[in-house]
Amino acid sequence: MYDAAEMTGVVKTERLQEGYSKVVYATNDPDKTVLWFKDTATAFRNIKRAEIKDKGIYTCRISSLLFKYLNDNGIKTHFLGQTGEREQLCRRADVLPIRVILRNVAAGAIVKLLGIEHGKVFSHPVTELTLKDNELDNPIINRDHADALGVASYEETDFIIDTAHKVNRQLSGLLESIGIKLVDFKLEFGYTSDHELVLTDEISPDTCRFWNIADGRQLDRDRYRLDLGDIIEAYQEITDRLTSAL
Amino acid sequence: MYDAAEMTGVVKTERLQEGYSKVVYATNDPDKTVLWFKDTATAFRNIKRAEIKDKGIYTCRISSLLFKYLNDNGIKTHFLGQTGEREQLCRRADVLPIRVILRNVAAGAIVKLLGIEHGKVFSHPVTELTLKDNELDNPIINRDHADALGVASYEETDFIIDTAHKVNRQLSGLLESIGIKLVDFKLEFGYTSDHELVLTDEISPDTCRFWNIADGRQLDRDRYRLDLGDIIEAYQEITDRLTSAL
Repeated sequence: MYDAAEMTGVVKTERLQEGYSKVVYATNDPDKTVLWFKDTATAFRNIKRAEIKDKGIYTCRISSLLFKYLNDNGIKTHFLGQTGEREQLCRRADVLPIRVILRNVAAGAIVKLLGIEHGKVFSHPVTELTLKDNELDNPIINRDHADALGVASYEETDFIIDTAHKVNRQLSGLLESIGIKLVDFKLEFGYTSDHELVLTDEISPDTCRFWNIADGRQLDRDRYRLDLGDIIEAYQEITDRLTSAL
Repeated sequence: MYDAAEMTGVVKTERLQEGYSKVVYATNDPDKTVLWFKDTATAFRNIKRAEIKDKGIYTCRISSLLFKYLNDNGIKTHFLGQTGEREQLCRRADVLPIRVILRNVAAGAIVKLLGIEHGKVFSHPVTELTLKDNELDNPIINRDHADALGVASYEETDFIIDTAHKVNRQLSGLLESIGIKLVDFKLEFGYTSDHELVLTDEISPDTCRFWNIADGRQLDRDRYRLDLGDIIEAYQEITDRLTSAL
């Protein structure tokens, strides 16, 4: 199940960074890191927070499966292999302080922002760049803003948005084949030590909205956000369906 | 001073629309309207409001001079001529429910949005699209949002942003020649009866920030917004300098 071979000779060293959902460790190889997936769930800008037993096992597994799929389909990512039930070996990357969100269907913040109906299907996918800055409330920015702030050049934001569309086409197809609609997702990008801009972070029910096509059931973090219950069951269902397909 | 000849045979009829700063009248020609400039000043989403005697005379004159300048320099606008001290004859246009803002220097909302310094000079002009929707607080949107909402196609937002850059180059040059820095401005666009997308609304100290290059003095609506006094004197100064240059 795990790509332990990838780990040969690589040893976790100091903790570089701890976020709400993951810990990043350095390794004895300066070009590689280990990501360790936690059980912490957060919502509403981290005001709501809980431990969901085993969540990290599922987010790690799902993200590993999806990153491997993207690697195999020509998307450059930081992912090297899953090396434990909560651990991934990754190329070390300096992450850009912006995110791209891609939306196929209206849910969450965009409903309020634009005054549109929850569930509206967009005829073209909608992308948004956001600035990773909690003090500023992670605002939506545009390419001019990113350039003006010096956080990403026009070339970089072009690449990031273009990659988001490619990831969307690939994952939407894969997920549809297992009965899941990819409603929206967010991506992060970073520079590896050899200055390649690659997809980083994770892709999981914590960072995507997954709706069950048959009955519209939400199989993602909204189960926690909106107190819908059966959180871990949803994450397990995504894991099982993906495992059977890949 | 006025282009009264343009008015020949055109008679104001019913009031089509009244905003805070202007009234739009229909005329006996279905393809033409009259804009009448009011003295009302507003700020902070119209919470702050006052009558500034003669303001409409200056905004009408400044906007007439600038639209004529743009017409003469190849920008398609709704403006046909100034026909009275507060009146313009215009091509009737169905105005799109979006605005474009172009910023050469950081001032106003962007300072708070991005946490940047007031007065920061952008190396590339920053553009923003906003949705004209008071209930939603006129949010900044992007081209995908505009398309998703059906308020403007990708082709239209391309044209609008491109035109904003052209207007910026032309007006920045003109204003610099009279000692004024064009800090930022907002533009609106609409379709004429022959389906031409043209620049509409006004360009004046109510819709632009003008800073006196010699001493940084604000010669625009910020004098009202920020209670700096000498509002009408600032508007008159812009009028006088532009009149002497054109």
